[in-house]
Amino acid sequence: MHLLDALQWRYATKRMTGERLPQQKVDNVLEAIRLAPTSSGIQPFTILHITDKQLLQQIKPIANNQAQITEASHLLVFAAWEDVSSEHIEAVYGRIAAERNLAPGAQKDYVEKLKDRFAGYTPEFRAQWAIRQTYLALGVAVAAAALEAVDAAPMEGFRNADLDQLLGLPQKGLRSYALMALGYRDTANDKLVHLKKVRRPKDELVINL
Amino acid sequence: MHLLDALQWRYATKRMTGERLPQQKVDNVLEAIRLAPTSSGIQPFTILHITDKQLLQQIKPIANNQAQITEASHLLVFAAWEDVSSEHIEAVYGRIAAERNLAPGAQKDYVEKLKDRFAGYTPEFRAQWAIRQTYLALGVAVAAAALEAVDAAPMEGFRNADLDQLLGLPQKGLRSYALMALGYRDTANDKLVHLKKVRRPKDELVINL
Repeated sequence: MHLLDALQWRYATKRMTGERLPQQKVDNVLEAIRLAPTSSGIQPFTILHITDKQLLQQIKPIANNQAQITEASHLLVFAAWEDVSSEHIEAVYGRIAAERNLAPGAQKDYVEKLKDRFAGYTPEFRAQWAIRQTYLALGVAVAAAALEAVDAAPMEGFRNADLDQLLGLPQKGLRSYALMALGYRDTANDKLVHLKKVRRPKDELVINL
Repeated sequence: MHLLDALQWRYATKRMTGERLPQQKVDNVLEAIRLAPTSSGIQPFTILHITDKQLLQQIKPIANNQAQITEASHLLVFAAWEDVSSEHIEAVYGRIAAERNLAPGAQKDYVEKLKDRFAGYTPEFRAQWAIRQTYLALGVAVAAAALEAVDAAPMEGFRNADLDQLLGLPQKGLRSYALMALGYRDTANDKLVHLKKVRRPKDELVINL
């Protein structure tokens, strides 16, 4: 399927059937997230990949009791790093050096500059920067799910701090920002299925220069 | 091409040939951006779609003199709304009502609640929220470009305020956050072409629950 057809087919699925997706399809979405580009290659996020039905029952009230939380086959939680440290940056470039067989010190100047740049940001900016990269990966996940013909509901409507507590994210230096319920649309019960997709027209969204 | 193959094929292209892309390919990327989902459907961003070579020359020094700015075929600037107002929300839901032929007032309670929610956020949070949606669209654009076999360099490395001034964005209530240079990779001169793609391994990026 062409991406534009897939994006027309998809919609923010509010009711799902509870059927289980083939794991390969979900793994493909996760792999697309893993391959998503991020600024300086830092990938400052972690994905919680949830299939435990009891846990989904606990998440549902935190997410305004939205039906798709428990009717989904899988739930992805997009959690950004609370901060980006020099240790994080060193780990990223250590891996790059190892996988590319770089000479020792080949990246030293670049990495030092990058660490200085991040150290010069406010903690608030570093956190916001990490969230931006997380949303970029969420966008790639939206495309990936649609191309797999997997129904998906990207969601911001939940009590972030409560979900963080439930999942033990503060201890991991993570905070949740978005959810993505994955499953099969319940065409009989989802009143959104047949609604026309509405977007800003191109001549309003795009300025040609 | 499967999305995962396309994401493996793509890389942050630093040198491009200057050849012109077929406009249809760029239009497909723009259409994917337009179809990207956003929270509450608000699409709080504008895309500057730049082909003017003189303007690209002016942008290059603002973007650390990176070669791909002027070697690109097209440059997209992802600019988020500085704020999200009640008028913005009314415009979005006015369009939805018109395109879906909804009865007058059918969305009234929902729209009032949404306006109240946004009015209750700090201006800083509203701005950050708009940036997040912009990055989600950037992620969809990354997938779209890769699937069109269009080389792309998503970039944060530029002086945002200077670019905003050059493009007259403050007068439009916009601020630039990311660029995407689109074109053809210069395989002879881009030393990044043949480097192994390095990402965090799945067992580090994903936690199964």
